Amino acid sequence: MDCEKAFTSIVLQTRIFFKNANSSKAVLGLSGGIDSALVAKILAKAIGAENVFAISMPLNEKISKQDISHAKNWAKALKINFYLLPISEFAKPFEKLKWKQSKISKGNSFARLRMNILYNFANSQNAIVAGTGNRTELSLGYFTKYGDGGADVLPIGSIYKTKVIEMAKFLKLPKEIIEKKPTAGLWQGQTDEKEIGMKYCEMDSILKALIDEKKPVEIVKKEFGSKNVEIILKRIENAKHKLCLAKILEI
Amino acid sequence: MDCEKAFTSIVLQTRIFFKNANSSKAVLGLSGGIDSALVAKILAKAIGAENVFAISMPLNEKISKQDISHAKNWAKALKINFYLLPISEFAKPFEKLKWKQSKISKGNSFARLRMNILYNFANSQNAIVAGTGNRTELSLGYFTKYGDGGADVLPIGSIYKTKVIEMAKFLKLPKEIIEKKPTAGLWQGQTDEKEIGMKYCEMDSILKALIDEKKPVEIVKKEFGSKNVEIILKRIENAKHKLCLAKILEI
Repeated sequence: MDCEKAFTSIVLQTRIFFKNANSSKAVLGLSGGIDSALVAKILAKAIGAENVFAISMPLNEKISKQDISHAKNWAKALKINFYLLPISEFAKPFEKLKWKQSKISKGNSFARLRMNILYNFANSQNAIVAGTGNRTELSLGYFTKYGDGGADVLPIGSIYKTKVIEMAKFLKLPKEIIEKKPTAGLWQGQTDEKEIGMKYCEMDSILKALIDEKKPVEIVKKEFGSKNVEIILKRIENAKHKLCLAKILEI
Repeated sequence: MDCEKAFTSIVLQTRIFFKNANSSKAVLGLSGGIDSALVAKILAKAIGAENVFAISMPLNEKISKQDISHAKNWAKALKINFYLLPISEFAKPFEKLKWKQSKISKGNSFARLRMNILYNFANSQNAIVAGTGNRTELSLGYFTKYGDGGADVLPIGSIYKTKVIEMAKFLKLPKEIIEKKPTAGLWQGQTDEKEIGMKYCEMDSILKALIDEKKPVEIVKKEFGSKNVEIILKRIENAKHKLCLAKILEI
């Protein structure tokens, strides 16, 4: 990937998107991770730092101390607006729900709370919600439906995670953000690669072979191993309902 | 509309949808209004009353006493499962947000909280979230993006509000539910017709002329009055971003 060319193209498209949407402001969740750090950089370049509002929404201020500090410092470096808004108080009533909740179900509710806060800001200030999902996550459905998946625009939605890292290095994003283990932050100790069961470079290679190069499954399995390809295929299949609108039944 | 035929068709399609989704359970928000009452009836017929979970989520238990009682009684009549879950506690932390919130922004946050609760149940119990949006609301974007608009399936999404009322009468839904003034319940005293500025029968006639019959705007204006047609056209235009997925920028 020609990082300079790709960055320039995304910035231009972002600018056009905001113009068409009649909005000059953007709001995004700034987690301290690489995806949101890159999206913040794109937005600042496209619409002006003073028009970008980043909200850090950790579940627990103490545990996420380092992530918060990374997010805050990066916002300062970019000269974008920054709010710290821990979601612990928002999450409390969910603890008392009357049904047995799974760990994933709880984590998804936190992601949906974050979306709700971003849209509360957006609706109040005529801002656009910029999502931070990348192509790997979108392809695998590795996001919460109507949670982090709930946004108006996805500036890095067509860039695989490995390429996000490349671009972040090219743009000289802070080393501590680039080198951090990717996590969706749905529960403590979670990392994407542990949860999915393989490295991002493996996921991206398999996705590229299956989707972009349209190679037959059997060939891809020989190249990357049956087990990993099966994991990817299953995730793609299960993600289908997340990648389309709610089904309208026709009379 | 042949109500019997339409009902049978929707029930059949609902059954097929749940089979394809590998799920036997449905969860929906039961407000005490006509749309959710009809969807509950469709679900009970399609997948069995014991598999339908209705949650009443008033903002204020006292103010919504009558709606709660209508919802509860209807759930009892249908023999579906029923939870009462006022969202006041969930809404409290939103009061303390640091930016100036508009009335609409607050109301939208409540709708997104309801979606979050429904999905928490759905994710925990492998259930499908059934949305209660009708065709009039969907066409006009008269719903909260990722709020009540956030669902897996929309059983009455292709039925105009006036036809929903027809079907509800045909199916002998409780009179007190059918005759209630439609409201999105985003704030006290809100009614849909007051907010949009015309009667549902007018909205549906204009939508039908513009969309289904593809009549030229000038003709429709002559027939239904310029002012109302302009209102509808503006709402259709503004609704576009709600009726498609988040825009992925391409590198």
